[in-house]
Amino acid sequence: MDDFVFQNTTKIIFGRGTEAKVGEEARQFGTRALLHYGGGSVKRSGLFDRVAASLKAAGVSFVELGGVAPNPRLSLVHEGIALCRREKVGIVIAIGGGSAIDSAKAIALGVPYQGEVWDFFAGTAEPKEALPVATVLTIPAAGSESSTASVITNEDGMLKRGFNSPIIYPRFSILNPELAFTLPKQQVANGVADIMSHLFERYFTNSRPVELTDRLIEATLRTVIDAAPRVLARADDYDAWAELMWSGTIAHNNLLNTGRVGDWGSHDLEHELSAAYDIAHGAGLAVVFPAWMKYVHKHDVARFAQVASRVWGVDSAFMDPERAALTGIERLEGFWQYLGLKVRLSGLGIGPERIPEMADKLSSKGTKTVGNFVKVGKAEAEAIYQLAL
Amino acid sequence: MDDFVFQNTTKIIFGRGTEAKVGEEARQFGTRALLHYGGGSVKRSGLFDRVAASLKAAGVSFVELGGVAPNPRLSLVHEGIALCRREKVGIVIAIGGGSAIDSAKAIALGVPYQGEVWDFFAGTAEPKEALPVATVLTIPAAGSESSTASVITNEDGMLKRGFNSPIIYPRFSILNPELAFTLPKQQVANGVADIMSHLFERYFTNSRPVELTDRLIEATLRTVIDAAPRVLARADDYDAWAELMWSGTIAHNNLLNTGRVGDWGSHDLEHELSAAYDIAHGAGLAVVFPAWMKYVHKHDVARFAQVASRVWGVDSAFMDPERAALTGIERLEGFWQYLGLKVRLSGLGIGPERIPEMADKLSSKGTKTVGNFVKVGKAEAEAIYQLAL
Repeated sequence: MDDFVFQNTTKIIFGRGTEAKVGEEARQFGTRALLHYGGGSVKRSGLFDRVAASLKAAGVSFVELGGVAPNPRLSLVHEGIALCRREKVGIVIAIGGGSAIDSAKAIALGVPYQGEVWDFFAGTAEPKEALPVATVLTIPAAGSESSTASVITNEDGMLKRGFNSPIIYPRFSILNPELAFTLPKQQVANGVADIMSHLFERYFTNSRPVELTDRLIEATLRTVIDAAPRVLARADDYDAWAELMWSGTIAHNNLLNTGRVGDWGSHDLEHELSAAYDIAHGAGLAVVFPAWMKYVHKHDVARFAQVASRVWGVDSAFMDPERAALTGIERLEGFWQYLGLKVRLSGLGIGPERIPEMADKLSSKGTKTVGNFVKVGKAEAEAIYQLAL
Repeated sequence: MDDFVFQNTTKIIFGRGTEAKVGEEARQFGTRALLHYGGGSVKRSGLFDRVAASLKAAGVSFVELGGVAPNPRLSLVHEGIALCRREKVGIVIAIGGGSAIDSAKAIALGVPYQGEVWDFFAGTAEPKEALPVATVLTIPAAGSESSTASVITNEDGMLKRGFNSPIIYPRFSILNPELAFTLPKQQVANGVADIMSHLFERYFTNSRPVELTDRLIEATLRTVIDAAPRVLARADDYDAWAELMWSGTIAHNNLLNTGRVGDWGSHDLEHELSAAYDIAHGAGLAVVFPAWMKYVHKHDVARFAQVASRVWGVDSAFMDPERAALTGIERLEGFWQYLGLKVRLSGLGIGPERIPEMADKLSSKGTKTVGNFVKVGKAEAEAIYQLAL
């Protein structure tokens, strides 16, 4: 087990109707909020009005900024920063999924900073402070409701970059599984791929031994595998949504990577894909991750055999680890297809044309390679994208 | 899944030599500390001197108070409160296991309170504030290094009572598995029983469905079962100690009871036992828990069959759940005996004489019964103690 420091300060308020508590919680951080959200669904569903009523009752006034798109853009972040400064906002509250939350975190970073907020994402500056962020989660997927991460796309060059710091842990996050009942099925499936990918990124590590966290990750994977088909079969299955929503948070709240270094190469490979084609992050991961697994599995057959055995019940792992490893990857592909996900680029209507361009952008990052379990440079990235065709 | 609020703010600093960081961490909370510990082992091992050097280097002066005994006493807490007030201490740092930490938490509660600190344990007052607490953990067992709990024994009537509040979450806890290398084998085994009992207390619940947390608890149990025999076989097995130490924290940091109500009756049954006979908490739990399980298993045979199957590999659970449930309890007894624990009162030299007295004290608490999974009153308590003979 690697040495580590772990502290996750986000307060989770979980259960039916918990959006009614946003006012009393927000009041502890300020009397003026920015409500930040995506399309109009939070208005149509009545959620926005319930949040607004709770804030008003607690004496918190607010301004609002909608329009966050999947792969949230830097330009809207700039707009939010200006709005917060003008309106003297004390807390940024995201209502939505990972995109709204990531955008809110970027706004919170930018408000007290005199320079260009993209500096933090480009890695050329380190923030000293940020406005408090809070969330009302509507999509179990990104895990951003209790994470140190924000991922933003700079339209200038369509650069998609992530930033990590404890200063953007949300102060509190409202998790009401009922809010997910109205999600489109495709978005649900994308979210499941995102959650499972967060678990796999942590699972594939060269740190050892990492027995407790291996088992905790496997436990969370098995829960997601059990719950996901149930929410797709019956959209108002509260119990299954509750398991899925809490799993989505646990998958990304940094507990499951204590004492180990995750890989994260597939996330970088996917970021190039979604930046190039503007596809949803989860949809891209469902294509990239199996290809990455096939490409790297020989690096640690035992680890792939372990997850095949413990998560997918592949019982050939003792006598034939290589076959078990590959069978495990096939089970994953089969499960994701069963959920309605495409597991090949061709299924997303994407051909080989821009593979060199994506591999080039990936390897032009500061580090030249991505991933920790296996280092992926330009040649490896091209091979993985080819395997995904 | 029940509605819940979860927030655990303790900063965990985990790894080799991490006691060297106590100074820089403590400095954030004050410039004068109380170092609180048990017997002389922390002095003999050199740990006390390393902690003292780290504090000095960071500009934190300190006073010290040793002498914490297992089942920590109220009289020493009083002494600590007076010392902290006199010396204007800003942070209480426990060096040791659960007893030192629980005692430190009680001192921290008492310093800013004008009344008698026992009020909080007796449930007749609610604290508004507490001094910051920090820990340097030497014994993986109680989980107090990242918990809201403190258990203190009032010598006046030998009343052992627990208190819970987020205000006593340690601000930071130093977890260096090397510090456990010198523990006596019996203390290690007691600690394992304590950790596993914290997991079982959470596992046996009437809340449902609780699938994610079931699986996370099972994952932690399997890790402990794998690691415990290894640290007993080789005292300086860092890897196994790391798994056990981090499992001990996870077992009790409140994550694994999110969305569920644990039982905790066995803890109350054990508190009467250790108050009456002054035996170690873990040693008492190893006797009480199997008896409790046998007494209550018919309340939810499926749950007992599930843990037998998933944790102990009992494969008869599908066709004969009752037999699987009982087999699982036997496996637990066998495992604890293998670690050198006694699983009957007779093994501890305890006969039936004081059973009525213990049952009487148990049921004289405010609630009349203890436990949530199954309510245990005086008659049930007597029956469970009898089963433990």
